Amino acid sequence: MKDFRIAILGCGTIGGGTARVLLDNLEGFSRKAGRRLVLAGIVTRSPAKSARRYGIPRELFLGEGDELSPAQTAALIDRIVGSDDIDLVVETIGGDSDYLLGIALGVLGSKKHLVTANKALLSKHGNRIFEAAEKNGAAIGFETSVCTSIPIIRVMKESFVSDEVISVSGIMNGTSNYILSRMQEGGISFAEALAQAQEIGYAEADPGFDIDGIDAAHKLGILMKLAFGIDVATSDLQVMGIRDITAEDMALADDMDCSVKLICHAHRKDGRVYGTVRPMMVKRSNLLAQVSGATNAVKVVNKYSGENLLIGRGAGSLEGGSAVSSDIIFIARYGSAAVETHSPVLCDFRSLDDMEFPYNIVFDTEDVPGITGSVTTAIGNQNINIDTVGHNRHGKTTAVFSIATMPCTLAQLRLAVQEIKAKRPDILRTEPRVMPILH
Amino acid sequence: MKDFRIAILGCGTIGGGTARVLLDNLEGFSRKAGRRLVLAGIVTRSPAKSARRYGIPRELFLGEGDELSPAQTAALIDRIVGSDDIDLVVETIGGDSDYLLGIALGVLGSKKHLVTANKALLSKHGNRIFEAAEKNGAAIGFETSVCTSIPIIRVMKESFVSDEVISVSGIMNGTSNYILSRMQEGGISFAEALAQAQEIGYAEADPGFDIDGIDAAHKLGILMKLAFGIDVATSDLQVMGIRDITAEDMALADDMDCSVKLICHAHRKDGRVYGTVRPMMVKRSNLLAQVSGATNAVKVVNKYSGENLLIGRGAGSLEGGSAVSSDIIFIARYGSAAVETHSPVLCDFRSLDDMEFPYNIVFDTEDVPGITGSVTTAIGNQNINIDTVGHNRHGKTTAVFSIATMPCTLAQLRLAVQEIKAKRPDILRTEPRVMPILH
Repeated sequence: MKDFRIAILGCGTIGGGTARVLLDNLEGFSRKAGRRLVLAGIVTRSPAKSARRYGIPRELFLGEGDELSPAQTAALIDRIVGSDDIDLVVETIGGDSDYLLGIALGVLGSKKHLVTANKALLSKHGNRIFEAAEKNGAAIGFETSVCTSIPIIRVMKESFVSDEVISVSGIMNGTSNYILSRMQEGGISFAEALAQAQEIGYAEADPGFDIDGIDAAHKLGILMKLAFGIDVATSDLQVMGIRDITAEDMALADDMDCSVKLICHAHRKDGRVYGTVRPMMVKRSNLLAQVSGATNAVKVVNKYSGENLLIGRGAGSLEGGSAVSSDIIFIARYGSAAVETHSPVLCDFRSLDDMEFPYNIVFDTEDVPGITGSVTTAIGNQNINIDTVGHNRHGKTTAVFSIATMPCTLAQLRLAVQEIKAKRPDILRTEPRVMPILH
Repeated sequence: MKDFRIAILGCGTIGGGTARVLLDNLEGFSRKAGRRLVLAGIVTRSPAKSARRYGIPRELFLGEGDELSPAQTAALIDRIVGSDDIDLVVETIGGDSDYLLGIALGVLGSKKHLVTANKALLSKHGNRIFEAAEKNGAAIGFETSVCTSIPIIRVMKESFVSDEVISVSGIMNGTSNYILSRMQEGGISFAEALAQAQEIGYAEADPGFDIDGIDAAHKLGILMKLAFGIDVATSDLQVMGIRDITAEDMALADDMDCSVKLICHAHRKDGRVYGTVRPMMVKRSNLLAQVSGATNAVKVVNKYSGENLLIGRGAGSLEGGSAVSSDIIFIARYGSAAVETHSPVLCDFRSLDDMEFPYNIVFDTEDVPGITGSVTTAIGNQNINIDTVGHNRHGKTTAVFSIATMPCTLAQLRLAVQEIKAKRPDILRTEPRVMPILH
């Protein structure tokens, strides 16, 4: 059988890791793929630097000199996309620009297979990219785009293919999870934990993408597409990050035997799909609560097989390189049969407002008599059952306490808070803080 | 494309679940497989009973009447194996007899694909069966054979294909795990916990297969074949079950913040592969310690991707039916490309004696002065470092205490115990009990 020729576009953390893992295993991977794999070329802006950093022979990089201009880089990318001599392109440039979309569509349009780690692009333009793959009989691999080392994409596509997903949830951003773990273990503030994460390289100088939940939302969007066949824009998901989590939230969670985690959660109920990304209080009896540091976890509940939990590393250069390589081997072995064959299932999408959760509500009040009665009465008036009323932390003239409810919606909770404010405008010092509880 | 015709041999828990899941999803599964799946026929000894139990139309069963004789059943199986009109045979009869081996080889020899849940058969004759599949260009699916709902077979074959397995371990027998969980939570004896498991149907009337570790060893053997390319007989693995675990073992484990679990463990080191199945003390900081009841867990440590943990249901009719169906869809979709393509990696196999573990040793002694000194000196004389000396539980004239070591071999420990016996023949009341500790 003829060689299977691979080009890599972009040689940063994942692209460099891919080249490294491929070069170290060409013989073994070829045997497993059933045909000879060849790393035909790499295009990147700084070939000399990438060659040094990842130990890749300079001659594998296209173009002359240590640094390429944007125009030179673009021309080389065009040459790869237009080449008749490449079977599969690995896109590890990153970003969701139209230029990147053009590269992905160009690769597939020329009937080359595409492997990408680009969750931002797939999340924004997944539909167009999957359609282009299907139309051109080209395969698309994206194992690396969601929770790097957890083989969740292949498991959803090839194993849970014989089941029906009821819910998919998890911890999908290692940076946030590291920060929350540090806050909970060390009793430190968000700012301190973020600084520690930045110091050891777990968080970027501009950490917004991770700590505001955007990265996690991209991953949840891709999993929702696989699980439910629906396309959800990140903006539809009501994404809330971890910037506002306080040491007090952590202490209150501790009191209730919970850990605070940034949770991606989507489920299907009565023909509707609900989804959100936000901090939740996770009961310690739930294994997700035990997933700490930069580790990721995905929990899938299926109709037949019930609860499945997968835990593994969510980032890393060789980790990413190995995941990209698993896509390459799969596609080389199974060819265009590895095209996406799921049909879209049309579901009505709903966001958090209509999703039922048990909630924890923290009230920061003046310490005057009758508060507990007013608050619990207002909650009861919205037909919300109360699970537990937490210990009251008295200040000099103030009190902080939390109430855990049975499952209800955010909309119900808002009405309850409105009633408290209307009947007792004197007692609430700040807006009550609300967090779903995951059992 | 022409229909993909499926026959099921054996209609018990897994076979019946498979028929049920297939019949309920033929249209969706066909779309995912890219060709029309047809359940062509089922052979079982008691068609009427199976039809009722699993809600399967009687006309799908071959043969006349409510019950078939062994001769009639065998003739119908022969007819399926010899048929030109069947693409894939699901073998869910069970057992590792030569007759069963003959059926598997007959199916593959006639170039039909085989899906089997039969871990006993694969464990005993895996080599011959895999070779027959390869030789005939037929695919073999066995997802259901190891930890039913955990998609570990496909993950090992298709995802970790781009990595190198360093170790594979886990909790692979739900019955034993349920019994141990009950003992640990309820403080009850092994006999009581076994009786409870039998009452709710988690344990058979003759529970040896589960509680003596045989079932777990079959699964570990299959995973070792995938992970390391080696064939290991169950008898090579030094399999030890849970019959001898006492309430006192549980209490001592509790003292050390451990749970006792029946652990399958295999790892590769310096070109050698080590493997065993036996009760171990698992530190509670290890997520495996939190896996309780009938749940299964598999942990794989890889060279590139590090630690991966998969947790899910280890048994069940629809669970099994869904796992079998995932094999059917995979094979219908990818055809004979789905043949095993791993080449055997030749490794020297070693059993527990030479495997280094931290160990916990329980000494039951006369309560006389100088014991701790004698025991710790003997251990030190074997170049074994001591991690902790446990709290001494004094009886009237006796003392029970445990010593946790740093990693060492069973062979070293045996020599230490010999020295204690030689120098102080008066102090040991019983043979010291030894259990590996999993951090």
